[in-house]
Amino acid sequence: MQTAINRQFRLASRPVGDITADNFEYREEAIPQLSDGEVLVRTIYLSLDPTNRIWMSDRPQYMPPVEIGQVMRGGGIGVVEQSKNPNFKTGDLVSGMLGWQDYALALGNTGLDITKLPNPLPYPLTALIGPLGMTGFTAYFGLLDIGKPKAGETVVVSAAAGAVGSVVGQIAKIMGCRVIGITGSDEKCRWLVEELGFDDAINYKTANLETALAKSCPDGIDVYFDNVGGAILDAVLTKINLHARIPLCGLISTYNATEPVPGPYNYSQILMQRSLVQGFIILDYVPRFGEAIKDLGQWLNQGKIKYALEIVEGLENAPSAILKLFDGSKIGKLAIKVSQEPV
Amino acid sequence: MQTAINRQFRLASRPVGDITADNFEYREEAIPQLSDGEVLVRTIYLSLDPTNRIWMSDRPQYMPPVEIGQVMRGGGIGVVEQSKNPNFKTGDLVSGMLGWQDYALALGNTGLDITKLPNPLPYPLTALIGPLGMTGFTAYFGLLDIGKPKAGETVVVSAAAGAVGSVVGQIAKIMGCRVIGITGSDEKCRWLVEELGFDDAINYKTANLETALAKSCPDGIDVYFDNVGGAILDAVLTKINLHARIPLCGLISTYNATEPVPGPYNYSQILMQRSLVQGFIILDYVPRFGEAIKDLGQWLNQGKIKYALEIVEGLENAPSAILKLFDGSKIGKLAIKVSQEPV
Repeated sequence: MQTAINRQFRLASRPVGDITADNFEYREEAIPQLSDGEVLVRTIYLSLDPTNRIWMSDRPQYMPPVEIGQVMRGGGIGVVEQSKNPNFKTGDLVSGMLGWQDYALALGNTGLDITKLPNPLPYPLTALIGPLGMTGFTAYFGLLDIGKPKAGETVVVSAAAGAVGSVVGQIAKIMGCRVIGITGSDEKCRWLVEELGFDDAINYKTANLETALAKSCPDGIDVYFDNVGGAILDAVLTKINLHARIPLCGLISTYNATEPVPGPYNYSQILMQRSLVQGFIILDYVPRFGEAIKDLGQWLNQGKIKYALEIVEGLENAPSAILKLFDGSKIGKLAIKVSQEPV
Repeated sequence: MQTAINRQFRLASRPVGDITADNFEYREEAIPQLSDGEVLVRTIYLSLDPTNRIWMSDRPQYMPPVEIGQVMRGGGIGVVEQSKNPNFKTGDLVSGMLGWQDYALALGNTGLDITKLPNPLPYPLTALIGPLGMTGFTAYFGLLDIGKPKAGETVVVSAAAGAVGSVVGQIAKIMGCRVIGITGSDEKCRWLVEELGFDDAINYKTANLETALAKSCPDGIDVYFDNVGGAILDAVLTKINLHARIPLCGLISTYNATEPVPGPYNYSQILMQRSLVQGFIILDYVPRFGEAIKDLGQWLNQGKIKYALEIVEGLENAPSAILKLFDGSKIGKLAIKVSQEPV
């Protein structure tokens, strides 16, 4: 799987609506030469996330959009192959925005920062793609720092079988809450309730959401962890309690829209129920990642947090695999295995 | 002006769209007899507020709607005429939800609570309808407790020439902020800038809002005190800074709507700019009113807070006067003078 060339996918055009394969250009480049202070990283796992769709657009967003012609941005885990930086040596495991390519040049003047992983690693490397990676941290800080769930409260999470949502629900259970997941298939509903211990799960594609929420949340909704926006947010707003908290993590229902998307029709409920909506991006929490690693690592080792990973083999499959984020076909975290883990 | 009967306006029907005179029924009742523990209050000033429109509807709201046939709810200031309650005596000035009537029966088993005002009162009685009343407290807690403005930041307020907005802007100036008001006439714009010391004011009826905001807020918007929702909120969202705070006080642009109203099209900016929207109702702050009275009273006496009142004489004019809240014709606080102040 390792190559003598550096295979890359660059952004060829901005998607209009759904992502298509021709939004990416495949390139074969030479493996870059190192200058002083730089490090060459071989990508092992490439994370695929809904936020990739935001970066491909030029709408207002929380980082600069990927420019046309740039290597597609993506978080990943890799191994140092060569180093001219005294802080890194060959064989070090690292994480960072490695991009959709076999090899990334980092540090020095490259503009790419990387973080060294512990050695030995107390978890499987794949855990760092899952609950001990960005998506786990997103669940942790969004729920605990903004949602502030109290024991006995009702927490609802959308995209509940996704990488973030599935961890949100399990942390809320650890906090003593009643937890309801909203997801898009009966299979995912079963996984949430039977495997992850959610109290109930709603298939929004077949249920009447307001009726189902009323049944699953007899005491109303205190925290809604929003990954999707749109009609699901509107239904939830009809059931929120006084002083409800709504961590706003994502709006995946709107990312592929080609026309302006209205905000929630029940926006006035935020006023009437004196509630809070707060947007957040995990990059704002970097200085506090240690807290998340400590708690999530402990819960993982205690078996209190379970996770599912769908690993697609081969960088060449990234442009087709990313569609799985939007068609509802995956459970848990989606990643590309670009090259082998070190033995 | 005092009457031997108790004139009342009761809710006759719920408005569809704009309030009309026939939403109210005029009644003449006997002045009620007191039971033990009760107090008879003569209304002096009746406050008219946008929230009255919410109470007249049966949409989801923060208090029970006024029932058809009930005396229309309204905050007011009055004087105790008779008392069978040891804590109140004839002549005491009080505030409370006196309703649209000459006389209100309070305390005991009436369900109506009242608050005794200081004697002697260190301000004109009308100040308690304005900045030292509910609308002033709303400005104070919404801006300071949720908006948390810091010196040098830019604060934008909508319905800026209203009872709440005009106080918001002046408190923000006291906090050292750049303050921009959005209002509906050139006359109000002049009042905000020339009389109240706002840095700039925008007439949303004639300006291109996004262009005007870009010009008035060269450093973006850190706090948006929202009284209106709708298109103004959407324009403001395009200019908010990272970690902006949006105290959600009112949505007057939607109160008269007869169709479902979409939330802001730029809702995603709350996510992208990691911002906060928090609804609040002044009733949640009752235990902290003392803080507001202390600061606002001091600022008032120092001349740092100015206010405008439009006092309409005569309870009989309440059903027509309330329309002024929605037609943009008033500056500052609107109230009805129901009877004379004690000499």
